[in-house]
Amino acid sequence: MPGISYEDFVDTGYLPSDSDLVCEFAIEPAAGLDMVDAAGRVASESSNGTWATLDVSEDVVDLSATAFRIEDGEIAVAYPRDLFEGGNMAQILSCIAGNIMGMKAVDAIRLLDVRWPEAIVETFRGPQFGSAVKSEFLDAGDRPALATVPKPKVGLTTDDHVEIARRAWLGGIDLLKDDENLTNQSFNGFEDRLTHTLEMRDRVEEETGDSKGYLVNITANADEMKRRADLVAAQGGDFVMVDVVTTGWAAVASVREHTDDLDVAIHAHRAMHAAFDRVENHGVAMRVLAQIARLVGVDHIHTGTANLGKLANEDTVGINDWLADDLYGLNDVLPVASGGLHPGTVKPLLDRIGTNVMIQAGGGVHGHPDGTEAGARAFRQAVDAYRDDVSPDEYAEDHPELAAALDNWGTHTPR
Amino acid sequence: MPGISYEDFVDTGYLPSDSDLVCEFAIEPAAGLDMVDAAGRVASESSNGTWATLDVSEDVVDLSATAFRIEDGEIAVAYPRDLFEGGNMAQILSCIAGNIMGMKAVDAIRLLDVRWPEAIVETFRGPQFGSAVKSEFLDAGDRPALATVPKPKVGLTTDDHVEIARRAWLGGIDLLKDDENLTNQSFNGFEDRLTHTLEMRDRVEEETGDSKGYLVNITANADEMKRRADLVAAQGGDFVMVDVVTTGWAAVASVREHTDDLDVAIHAHRAMHAAFDRVENHGVAMRVLAQIARLVGVDHIHTGTANLGKLANEDTVGINDWLADDLYGLNDVLPVASGGLHPGTVKPLLDRIGTNVMIQAGGGVHGHPDGTEAGARAFRQAVDAYRDDVSPDEYAEDHPELAAALDNWGTHTPR
Repeated sequence: MPGISYEDFVDTGYLPSDSDLVCEFAIEPAAGLDMVDAAGRVASESSNGTWATLDVSEDVVDLSATAFRIEDGEIAVAYPRDLFEGGNMAQILSCIAGNIMGMKAVDAIRLLDVRWPEAIVETFRGPQFGSAVKSEFLDAGDRPALATVPKPKVGLTTDDHVEIARRAWLGGIDLLKDDENLTNQSFNGFEDRLTHTLEMRDRVEEETGDSKGYLVNITANADEMKRRADLVAAQGGDFVMVDVVTTGWAAVASVREHTDDLDVAIHAHRAMHAAFDRVENHGVAMRVLAQIARLVGVDHIHTGTANLGKLANEDTVGINDWLADDLYGLNDVLPVASGGLHPGTVKPLLDRIGTNVMIQAGGGVHGHPDGTEAGARAFRQAVDAYRDDVSPDEYAEDHPELAAALDNWGTHTPR
Repeated sequence: MPGISYEDFVDTGYLPSDSDLVCEFAIEPAAGLDMVDAAGRVASESSNGTWATLDVSEDVVDLSATAFRIEDGEIAVAYPRDLFEGGNMAQILSCIAGNIMGMKAVDAIRLLDVRWPEAIVETFRGPQFGSAVKSEFLDAGDRPALATVPKPKVGLTTDDHVEIARRAWLGGIDLLKDDENLTNQSFNGFEDRLTHTLEMRDRVEEETGDSKGYLVNITANADEMKRRADLVAAQGGDFVMVDVVTTGWAAVASVREHTDDLDVAIHAHRAMHAAFDRVENHGVAMRVLAQIARLVGVDHIHTGTANLGKLANEDTVGINDWLADDLYGLNDVLPVASGGLHPGTVKPLLDRIGTNVMIQAGGGVHGHPDGTEAGARAFRQAVDAYRDDVSPDEYAEDHPELAAALDNWGTHTPR
């Protein structure tokens, strides 16, 4: 067969331009190929190449990617900006995380990181609020926002759901969050749940004088999500929750566009991310997923618990830093830590991830020996202790709910 | 800490009901856990459980999943139908392929297969046409439909794109397909490309008397995809193409709903599937992705080349069989084989996957020594030889384009 020109896609002397999108991949070349061979194939397949030698028209626009750095196991590939359709994340992913994930030329390939040029960033909306939700919609400007999910996460009637919300809010939690499994099932329909939970929010706000929020899960087909977001806004809700991986970015982008007119923030759950980011040498890193989420424009996203909870984690701290850093003027994203947390893990968690975050506990609130309201108090007390730079044990001396939580769970990390 | 009741989620005496959704997982328990421990945690986290012991209201609806089969490395879990919101694939995935993918209780977990009960299937639209597109929109009722993608896949001007389409159709190809990277970029904008390619299709249909099709890539944000689908239908197109993994199912479902009124079929590309289906012991199997695609309602989907092309493959034949089998009256899905194919691999491919398929070659058409039209003829001749039960070499004796292709590529599988 004729020669394949994969070497045209490698140039270690190439200096990426400001407008290039740059991807870092970890790759493991297939048997018989070296890193340069494999790098050329990755750059080719993810841009404009094919395996056969072609005669091309002189009018063709050269959109070749260039593998410009090849190290032991890692490569960097620069893509010309015009390869991409602005604002179309699905199209970008089809290039940089598409067919190459399945190429036989590599035994494994992982997209580790992306440098997003301004020429691409400016085509996305970004978050409408970002971490400003803490002061804009809540009273958590100078501390972590606290959230909880009713447990069991599915199966509660609407009345029980609302009662749990009341207790959690009264105990000092800022946000009630639906679980990712709860959308519009027969036992707790979306519209009744929305109406009654927001009515209860208003009652608790009046009773406590504090601002409270409800992260209502609108996860559904794209059109239905927009309809549900309209209902949320019409009833005075400030937040919608979307499970961004299982819905996909094309739907999230349409929801984001829609919320421009609704003044509601988007809380991103990330169920299923670990299907492609957990295996160390393959797939797409959570760091890249978080970057995508910021560009498309969610306001909060779950980024793990820095290895303190029940879920496997990647680089929570590095991801959170990226979400806070300047990105050509785009708003930041508030990171959410969740999964097996309880009052006893608040201090080590905040030591690792700082306080400009949202932290969420489900079992770690409702599983408190004295129930949900006491659990909420204990969770809030753990945060207040941290704010006051007092150790949890010392704070617990005159905060019985925290004391009971620490007695119950210690600083155990469940799994 | 108090006892965790994961054992409540294991019952090897349980017989799934007809309405249960049943998932098969391969799991590798984390150190210190056995298969039963891990199975209980998987069933719990994917349904209504949490890690903490709870006092629950008496009104709660029991939506527990049950791990009812536990074998060496594999488990089967039954989920009650009411755990799920009908028609909401994102919600279903958030349960059966969500947080459990990242649980520390397992070192690896893979969703291998799903048994979809009628009670769930009936809540989805399914394909509008399925394999009937071969006779409804094309003249390929009794043979594989043939498709090609212009190469280079991005960078061609609209004029060159249309000229390549003309040559491919004249050579005997049924369908011109946009590549997954080509949506609406500056070098070849969507609207001009659509208009001019469909005009050329009409010319070629008139010239040849054959029905031809254009798989135009509408991949974009959800609302924009619907707008583009409207343009396709308004200009007489019969097909839209969507990159279903990078857009996500919530958007595909809205496109599917929208096309009910448009009389256009949906061609599903699957770029990025290998990010979560390639590693053997983790993620979500392509078989499940194909099942989802059928429920949501695409008409064709790429299912690999039975290990004859440039991309890594799973069980192409098993998946294709599933797509053809009865599923409570839902239409079938036409499987598409693509990726490094050329005339020399047609016979072994069709031997493996049969003829009720679409087969697609890009480089294997345009890389022909005598160019695109000759390449299209060679590809069609290879299929005609198969239909006539004549070996490619014998057929090539009086079909010079096929002879040149075989001389050029033999039966080599590129990578």
